[in-house]
Amino acid sequence: MTETTKRHRVVIVGGGFGGLEAARELRRAPVDITLIDRRNFHLFQPLLYQVATGELSPANIASPLRTVFRRQKNCQVLLGEVTDFDADGHRVLLRDGEIAYDSLIVAAGSTHSYFGHNEWESLAPGLKTIEDATRVRKKILLAFEAAEREPDPERRRAWLTFVLVGGGPTGVELAGALSEIARHTFRKDFRNIDPAEANIVIVEAAAKPLHVYSDKLSGKAAQALDRLGVHVRTHTKVVDVQDDHVVLESNSDRETLATRTVLWTAGVAASPLGRRLADATDATTDRIGRVQVEPNLTLPGHPDLFVIGDLAHCPDENGRPLPGLAPVAIQQGAYAAKVIAGRLENSPAPPPFSYRDRGSMAVIGRYAAIARIGKMELSGLVAWLMWLMLHLMEITLFQNRLLVLIQWGWAYLFRSRAARLITGPVEPLIETGDDPSGRKSADARAGQTVDTTT
Amino acid sequence: MTETTKRHRVVIVGGGFGGLEAARELRRAPVDITLIDRRNFHLFQPLLYQVATGELSPANIASPLRTVFRRQKNCQVLLGEVTDFDADGHRVLLRDGEIAYDSLIVAAGSTHSYFGHNEWESLAPGLKTIEDATRVRKKILLAFEAAEREPDPERRRAWLTFVLVGGGPTGVELAGALSEIARHTFRKDFRNIDPAEANIVIVEAAAKPLHVYSDKLSGKAAQALDRLGVHVRTHTKVVDVQDDHVVLESNSDRETLATRTVLWTAGVAASPLGRRLADATDATTDRIGRVQVEPNLTLPGHPDLFVIGDLAHCPDENGRPLPGLAPVAIQQGAYAAKVIAGRLENSPAPPPFSYRDRGSMAVIGRYAAIARIGKMELSGLVAWLMWLMLHLMEITLFQNRLLVLIQWGWAYLFRSRAARLITGPVEPLIETGDDPSGRKSADARAGQTVDTTT
Repeated sequence: MTETTKRHRVVIVGGGFGGLEAARELRRAPVDITLIDRRNFHLFQPLLYQVATGELSPANIASPLRTVFRRQKNCQVLLGEVTDFDADGHRVLLRDGEIAYDSLIVAAGSTHSYFGHNEWESLAPGLKTIEDATRVRKKILLAFEAAEREPDPERRRAWLTFVLVGGGPTGVELAGALSEIARHTFRKDFRNIDPAEANIVIVEAAAKPLHVYSDKLSGKAAQALDRLGVHVRTHTKVVDVQDDHVVLESNSDRETLATRTVLWTAGVAASPLGRRLADATDATTDRIGRVQVEPNLTLPGHPDLFVIGDLAHCPDENGRPLPGLAPVAIQQGAYAAKVIAGRLENSPAPPPFSYRDRGSMAVIGRYAAIARIGKMELSGLVAWLMWLMLHLMEITLFQNRLLVLIQWGWAYLFRSRAARLITGPVEPLIETGDDPSGRKSADARAGQTVDTTT
Repeated sequence: MTETTKRHRVVIVGGGFGGLEAARELRRAPVDITLIDRRNFHLFQPLLYQVATGELSPANIASPLRTVFRRQKNCQVLLGEVTDFDADGHRVLLRDGEIAYDSLIVAAGSTHSYFGHNEWESLAPGLKTIEDATRVRKKILLAFEAAEREPDPERRRAWLTFVLVGGGPTGVELAGALSEIARHTFRKDFRNIDPAEANIVIVEAAAKPLHVYSDKLSGKAAQALDRLGVHVRTHTKVVDVQDDHVVLESNSDRETLATRTVLWTAGVAASPLGRRLADATDATTDRIGRVQVEPNLTLPGHPDLFVIGDLAHCPDENGRPLPGLAPVAIQQGAYAAKVIAGRLENSPAPPPFSYRDRGSMAVIGRYAAIARIGKMELSGLVAWLMWLMLHLMEITLFQNRLLVLIQWGWAYLFRSRAARLITGPVEPLIETGDDPSGRKSADARAGQTVDTTT
């Protein structure tokens, strides 16, 4: 008990890249760590799109937090949902309890933003969680199933039209994987449709996809997308999303596109916990709800309260906020851990946090990716292989590394996708509404389905 | 078109073991096959309990039907839900259409029966579908998480008590896997509880678990369960299931057992489509809703309507209905296919269907299983290895075979479980109801969690 009171209590909120790194960095420090997460696993988000497209299983990119920290005796995992903070009382409030801390690291991450159109969320799922991924997977697979059964050419076309809102990495990755599915994986799988007719559209408000990259690299990406048959609509905004169409706007021209599948990869907003944190500390949040942090990642007037990762608004040397990338979160997690450990040893405070940008990469599809390493720019097969290696190595548990390797091997050799599961309730695929009996058209359908098999 | 009208249309309802076999057996027959299933995949049910216990991922035991039949040009897969039959009009009615047939094979399988206590279903999930498995997995994992956070010893005990209703193969398999998790997989994962204290109880109404086996074999099974620390309550019935306890009855003594996790592996009932089929054909159904079939598996007065698998009540040479096992369904699927193909060649009708019982086996846990092959009886490691080999070979797609092999290897070498995911919404784990503020007890909890880590 005396021992207990002496140990410095570090509470980490969020088991993402930042929180995980912070907890690991503190493994030798004389502290008691409690890592709190709503989920019992760490999610390797960069491969979420491969779950959404049936290439990997959720478990392949999720590592149980208890397994990750099994051997780190000074770290305990708490499955719970943080609802608020009492910064002055040094307490984190949970949905079903609370926990006291001496140092707090908040790494609650981000969610999607529908730019004030939350009503779109039910129609156009984003891709942040495992549930999102299986939901997107179901939506994609059901679209092809419905097209296979739909006799009306126009409706069928709508089922085979996939609109990706946002030309960032996730949108591009999804588009590439969708093209792969439509043109190769599904090639022999259907009898009434040619899946290769799928119309995959990326809607990007900026002048080019992957616009954070140089013109050269994003140009390469655009070419690769073109080869994959993906249509990129730049300078274009989505102004309405409905069950069976979207309305696009490009320089004040409006256009309606019939589609049954809209996927949202555009906006990002900080976790609502950012707001709670700001209220509890009089810190300020930016436009997308990120909390403004001091140069050492703490909050003003709260030297033992750190905010890192997507939740933190941390300016780079040019004053622009650092992007919401895994490497940023990881370096910030390590930094916060070092500051805390250093204080316990009464060693001088480290210099302000600065992000070491080792580069970034985006994959477009099979054998196609772009990469920037420092000043060097790569594209094509080389970049793709590099992407493959890096992501494979970064996956947290070795067992998953092996399982992912095999499934990638299969996907690239045989273009197969093992995890093509439609789970959960399924609505009727065919509207029979326009036909009172709902039979006649169906009869035609049955007849026609038999036709095409001969 | 003329060609079309000539081809004999075979409709198969259900992509389980029976339906799959029937469709494959007809691959060379001059027929157009339409395989209808509510799901887009064939499920390898014998390993469902390993998904429920986090050893395998859903996709590892599910094979997309379109992949299975990609190369079988005379077979098309239809994702749809059959609602009724028009036997005289030779039509199958779907939720969103209908389809005409010349020959029909109904293999709609079975579901659980709660013996008239359907209100128990929400509290005590069964294990028939992928959704069941992930639901059970979530229930099991959350129970340990809640125990880790629960300071009250009695409540904690209830969280660590797992009641399996039914001592058949599924109940025994689940119990064995649960014991493995509690004693080995989770050994180092928690800080406040010793998972090995988990109390795993099988409730069996009969005189012994796995009672379809000889006294010798079921005795071996009982011993193995005992070694695993599983308590088997024979001659015992569950008479009530509540959120926090069950009521057991053994020879008119009643006893309440506090538990938060009740899993249902007891009753089986035929798919509701059996009832629809009987109404449409004046066939009769048995006590559990199976349809009485003729010796050639057709329905009386409907020579081109076959019922196979769990949905069929088909007597063996002693007049007892054949059990709902995969081998029975597979042999019946092959038989129905042969009858249909034979008729098209005008060859004489084959002899009545008779089941060739090659034996059966049940796995209890790591290195422990029982097997009956013809007259030979095996148990222990030999039976376990045989079970392993057989099931590995029987998995439908080779990619899955490899993925399963790796995960089994891991599970047996390192006792790890890759697929330990809690997905979907999670209720608060700790009742704070008995404490107006909900804080104080939580505070104690937080304090105590820190204690135990030192």
